[in-house]
Amino acid sequence: MTSAAAVDAVRRSEATLTVRRPDGSACADTDVLVEQVGHRFAFGNIGFDFVGLANAEQGDARENVFGGASPEAAELLEDLWLDVFNTATLPFYWAGFEPVEGQPDTRRLQAAAAWFRDRGVAVKGHPLVWHTLAPDWLAEYSEAEVEEILRWRIRREVTSFAGLVDTWDAINEVVIMPVFANEERRNAVTALCRRIGRIPTIRLAFEEARRANPRTTLILNDFNLSTAYECLIEGVLEAGVQLDAIGLQSHMHQGYWGEERTQEVLERFARYGLPLHWTETTLLSGDLMPPEIVDLNDHQVEHWPSTPEGEERQADDVVRHYRTLLAHPAVEAVTYWGITDRGAWLGAPAGLVRADGTRKPAYDALRGLVKEDWWLAPTRLRTDAEGRVPVRGWAGDYSVTAGDRSATWSLRPDAPTPETTLT
Amino acid sequence: MTSAAAVDAVRRSEATLTVRRPDGSACADTDVLVEQVGHRFAFGNIGFDFVGLANAEQGDARENVFGGASPEAAELLEDLWLDVFNTATLPFYWAGFEPVEGQPDTRRLQAAAAWFRDRGVAVKGHPLVWHTLAPDWLAEYSEAEVEEILRWRIRREVTSFAGLVDTWDAINEVVIMPVFANEERRNAVTALCRRIGRIPTIRLAFEEARRANPRTTLILNDFNLSTAYECLIEGVLEAGVQLDAIGLQSHMHQGYWGEERTQEVLERFARYGLPLHWTETTLLSGDLMPPEIVDLNDHQVEHWPSTPEGEERQADDVVRHYRTLLAHPAVEAVTYWGITDRGAWLGAPAGLVRADGTRKPAYDALRGLVKEDWWLAPTRLRTDAEGRVPVRGWAGDYSVTAGDRSATWSLRPDAPTPETTLT
Repeated sequence: MTSAAAVDAVRRSEATLTVRRPDGSACADTDVLVEQVGHRFAFGNIGFDFVGLANAEQGDARENVFGGASPEAAELLEDLWLDVFNTATLPFYWAGFEPVEGQPDTRRLQAAAAWFRDRGVAVKGHPLVWHTLAPDWLAEYSEAEVEEILRWRIRREVTSFAGLVDTWDAINEVVIMPVFANEERRNAVTALCRRIGRIPTIRLAFEEARRANPRTTLILNDFNLSTAYECLIEGVLEAGVQLDAIGLQSHMHQGYWGEERTQEVLERFARYGLPLHWTETTLLSGDLMPPEIVDLNDHQVEHWPSTPEGEERQADDVVRHYRTLLAHPAVEAVTYWGITDRGAWLGAPAGLVRADGTRKPAYDALRGLVKEDWWLAPTRLRTDAEGRVPVRGWAGDYSVTAGDRSATWSLRPDAPTPETTLT
Repeated sequence: MTSAAAVDAVRRSEATLTVRRPDGSACADTDVLVEQVGHRFAFGNIGFDFVGLANAEQGDARENVFGGASPEAAELLEDLWLDVFNTATLPFYWAGFEPVEGQPDTRRLQAAAAWFRDRGVAVKGHPLVWHTLAPDWLAEYSEAEVEEILRWRIRREVTSFAGLVDTWDAINEVVIMPVFANEERRNAVTALCRRIGRIPTIRLAFEEARRANPRTTLILNDFNLSTAYECLIEGVLEAGVQLDAIGLQSHMHQGYWGEERTQEVLERFARYGLPLHWTETTLLSGDLMPPEIVDLNDHQVEHWPSTPEGEERQADDVVRHYRTLLAHPAVEAVTYWGITDRGAWLGAPAGLVRADGTRKPAYDALRGLVKEDWWLAPTRLRTDAEGRVPVRGWAGDYSVTAGDRSATWSLRPDAPTPETTLT
């Protein structure tokens, strides 16, 4: 089976939709138009670029280590972003979110989250706990105080954003957390994790976030996809910590991994029976980072252009990667790491749109998957005597129109006989 | 501080010995001779070579994948072995121990263990659970049956050897266990571990062994000393499994690690507050294995000689390695992997004695540490009016002699005022 066929087999399902008239009677023997309006699968991207725009800011974007176009540039990106993606990751890096203790950037991020929500986009917060970008002021406190302040920070963010942010990276990169050393900032989180251990630190993050909002989806996220992460996950699950999804980063600055390695990662992490979120996917449209670099942050170049050959390769890589991921039933989300090369992490040509705002081939390729290959085009069908019509499509939200009346409904593999009433 | 001085600082302690006459009165103002007779620290080596000798077998040694001299050759090694080592590791590789189901090699191994015990040597069993060398017949059973048979095997061995084998590698190489693939034999243990998970497999091993003999020392042992092993240990401890010691293999066929790397390993694994056992130490006296080999089993050479330069290097490496390990207070045992090159694992010149039975420089160097540098030579002292005499020495067993009477006593840092009565 080709990967395209495999995606189809895994992701498409049959539903028998029953359409009713406003009075509840079957809308029998009627021509209807069925249209997909959204994906259930989370096609994500970072929304860092739109924080300024959502807040009607002027001029340059506020400093943000992981990307961020100016509000003017973001305005031109808005339609491109919204045409492909339905899930936005917003930055809650603690050092940036609360640079001065007691002055969190809550209102600004709430406005950004609402901006996305108003456009039908789900919002994910990244991350609640991480050693990198722990605020410098935290290091002034005692170890016991650091733990209390961290717990308070988790409760505060999850509570303040309840209803706006549905999903959180509860904790980021725990495999390396207690031994992390490659840093400029003073980091109190590594010291905490080293003292209490990896699993208690994870438990702390998940328990505080869960208590603050039991309805949120909480993710354990890591870039280390080695056996160490497996062993950590096994320990966390044995310790009774409830993970809602396993987060797998895939910043491929050193080149696309290929189907075989990706498949091997999928198999190893699907063993736990949990949804897999590919949380941070990067594929370059320029020179690749040399393979000997271990910490990607160590590779600093002055100018890192997008090239025509690189763009062709990136488009091909994007298609291969997304097809491989969607062909595995455990995968529920894929977040691409950046819409534009402007302000991209490490200056790498990782965006789907060039710095000048034009689309790269990878953008069109990904849009082709999300909105064409994996999308039910408007389809004319006829209901039977009971108002039923069979639909084979991708899990997600749909509309059905009969004459001048319409209704929305959802196609879900676990609920194959939806009903909807025209209004 | 030099490592020699560091060993002294960590390993030597002061005791004030009170010597009593047979009637209980103080042996006051008397010349006494104090002599060390044994180390508390476990200086281990494998005892595979002596199983045939202990059983008065003739001719070639029974097939054993991990070494084994013929009984005749072993006889010549006996004094050399016993002069340096006080702890023997015996082979309980399941495929070799019970090649035909229901016919375990119990009596033969009991005789070997008793042979060592009668010579004042503690015995360790290796290993109770391991994927490599699982018996082929095990693969005939269902998954549920494999678990039951494995539990039965653990109980059987620990029970049959209670009083003879005090210490067990309860389970070996769990980091790789569920994903192990480099093998010729059909392996039912990997399938079990893959199904139930690493931590439940470890719990199974420790709980069965503990129940069978609560007084035994149970070790989790691995060659993988990466972050994965740390994460596994954290998960095991969080899951409430009681480990008595952490086992660290150090087969250095690719060259001595050096003090810095060894120290780094010690620091990382000492964090859990558990004793560290260096369970499998190998240093070569010939060519080193190329660094690109990942699984040492993959390197097969026809002839792998011990060389004069290699022997000098090995002697130096042995001294550096043992000094580094004994300078760390968490280390309670170091087992060298083989006394002789005869039948050594992979044919490597890893022994301390050449195949022809002559001592390599490394043997003399290690004996120099164990019996000279770290050993209290016979010392004449005089007791005070209360029969007391101060002794500064290495933890272990000692004798004290006054005239034609003598007694034994133990020097332990946690019991600095021992008493003994002459008989």
